[in-house]
Amino acid sequence: MIGAESRPAALGILAGGGPLPGRVAAAAAAAGRPVFLVGLEGFAERSVLAPFPHGFVRLGAAGRILAMLRENGCRDLVLVGPVKRPSILDLRPDVEGARILARIGRAAFAGDDGLLAAVVRVLAEEGFSVLGAHEILTEAVAPGGLLGTIAPDAQAMSDIARGVAVVRALGAADVGQACVVQQGIVLALEAIEGTDAMLARAGLLARQGSGGVLVKLVKPGQDRRADLPTIGPNTVAAAAAAKLSGIAFEAGGTLLTDRDGLVRAGDAAGLFLLGIDPSKYA
Amino acid sequence: MIGAESRPAALGILAGGGPLPGRVAAAAAAAGRPVFLVGLEGFAERSVLAPFPHGFVRLGAAGRILAMLRENGCRDLVLVGPVKRPSILDLRPDVEGARILARIGRAAFAGDDGLLAAVVRVLAEEGFSVLGAHEILTEAVAPGGLLGTIAPDAQAMSDIARGVAVVRALGAADVGQACVVQQGIVLALEAIEGTDAMLARAGLLARQGSGGVLVKLVKPGQDRRADLPTIGPNTVAAAAAAKLSGIAFEAGGTLLTDRDGLVRAGDAAGLFLLGIDPSKYA
Repeated sequence: MIGAESRPAALGILAGGGPLPGRVAAAAAAAGRPVFLVGLEGFAERSVLAPFPHGFVRLGAAGRILAMLRENGCRDLVLVGPVKRPSILDLRPDVEGARILARIGRAAFAGDDGLLAAVVRVLAEEGFSVLGAHEILTEAVAPGGLLGTIAPDAQAMSDIARGVAVVRALGAADVGQACVVQQGIVLALEAIEGTDAMLARAGLLARQGSGGVLVKLVKPGQDRRADLPTIGPNTVAAAAAAKLSGIAFEAGGTLLTDRDGLVRAGDAAGLFLLGIDPSKYA
Repeated sequence: MIGAESRPAALGILAGGGPLPGRVAAAAAAAGRPVFLVGLEGFAERSVLAPFPHGFVRLGAAGRILAMLRENGCRDLVLVGPVKRPSILDLRPDVEGARILARIGRAAFAGDDGLLAAVVRVLAEEGFSVLGAHEILTEAVAPGGLLGTIAPDAQAMSDIARGVAVVRALGAADVGQACVVQQGIVLALEAIEGTDAMLARAGLLARQGSGGVLVKLVKPGQDRRADLPTIGPNTVAAAAAAKLSGIAFEAGGTLLTDRDGLVRAGDAAGLFLLGIDPSKYA
């Protein structure tokens, strides 16, 4: 145990899709901390995990996931990267998975927050300490105010206020994190289709005149240790294709997958990127 | 004025899309009441209005609409059939339209209810009495309980309860009237794309196993004199294509465009059709 004390315990990373699992691993490794990534099959990208010690397990094989984390000395755990919730039929739980599913209970098939809170609770009961990706990846947390050089006009500020009210109402029902508002009209609401699909739809529904805004927030009461809203250059590309005027995101509650690329993309497309504090909105 | 008393004043029908304006006109005519329909250009269907005295006017020409209603002896007025809200650029108001728009003010470009309430208020100030389509078309108002022979199972009942909570939260923010829930997961939320487009999307997002439900309700506090939710055989076709198990709608607050056709389509597709009282849900 002297060895264990002289070297920090490994950081376990339960990896969904996108680049963030690799970013978290790199930040931890840069700080001198060993890491081990468990890639969720069908979600985690091999190229993202490849540079680090890792394995792949399907989501339903909870027994295998916990064993792999323990075998690799992980006690702290980060859940990062999008995972589409499986149906009970897709899940095919292993023995441990079935036991855990029973402990999660109905929450597994209710709202998102209910599920994530239940997963975090079960992981804690199994002896793991769940950290937020934003606690490791501090430089990727969105700041308040403008990123880049484009500022919203009065119509956009009014649309942002409406979007904040709508997304908060959605979040109170534990569904969705985002909407698109143009000229006071809610063009699209996000459920499970994801932000990019919602933006594509909003582009088809857009009307003439001043472009709409994407508002993306943390759900009220959401456990920030899982599934923080994420934006990156691809979000800007989708927003520009939908002829939006900009993106408002929650300062301190949004992960930027590539801050420099995001700012470059926003400036090049003429889109504002505004970090807001939703509690400041009526 | 003796003549006016011996014969009821004409019922004015401000007609948007779909078959309901014709249904309202036929019901009033069958009750011995003269009717005059003002078809909104780009929304009202010529074949629906053709059997009745009517004219066509574009939405922005409010002066022309009011004059046409007065010329044809209308004092009671029904607003029926979907109208997509135009942008300020599409609207091109006439002189009277600009005056009315100023009286409607910001509500014209805020939430739906705000706009409709303002339109009803302005019409009242102009001397018209606005009735709900459901007051004329009483046999088209959805009853409580099952239509047809298919009943929801326990999963569907649970999904309906979740959908009611979600649609009510949306409605409180004055947006949307419908959502699709499958196995506790909200697959899709309706904004301005319309129910059929939302159902098409939900079909692409559906998971294996027990099919989802469409929940469509009146918004809390909505003025029922305008824009009641509507379902018909085409809704059943879209729901069946999305592999749903059924449709829950608000009893007393939904217009059925073709009740017999709806029931036949539901039974043929194996979909339940359930009229609910949302106030009975927690």
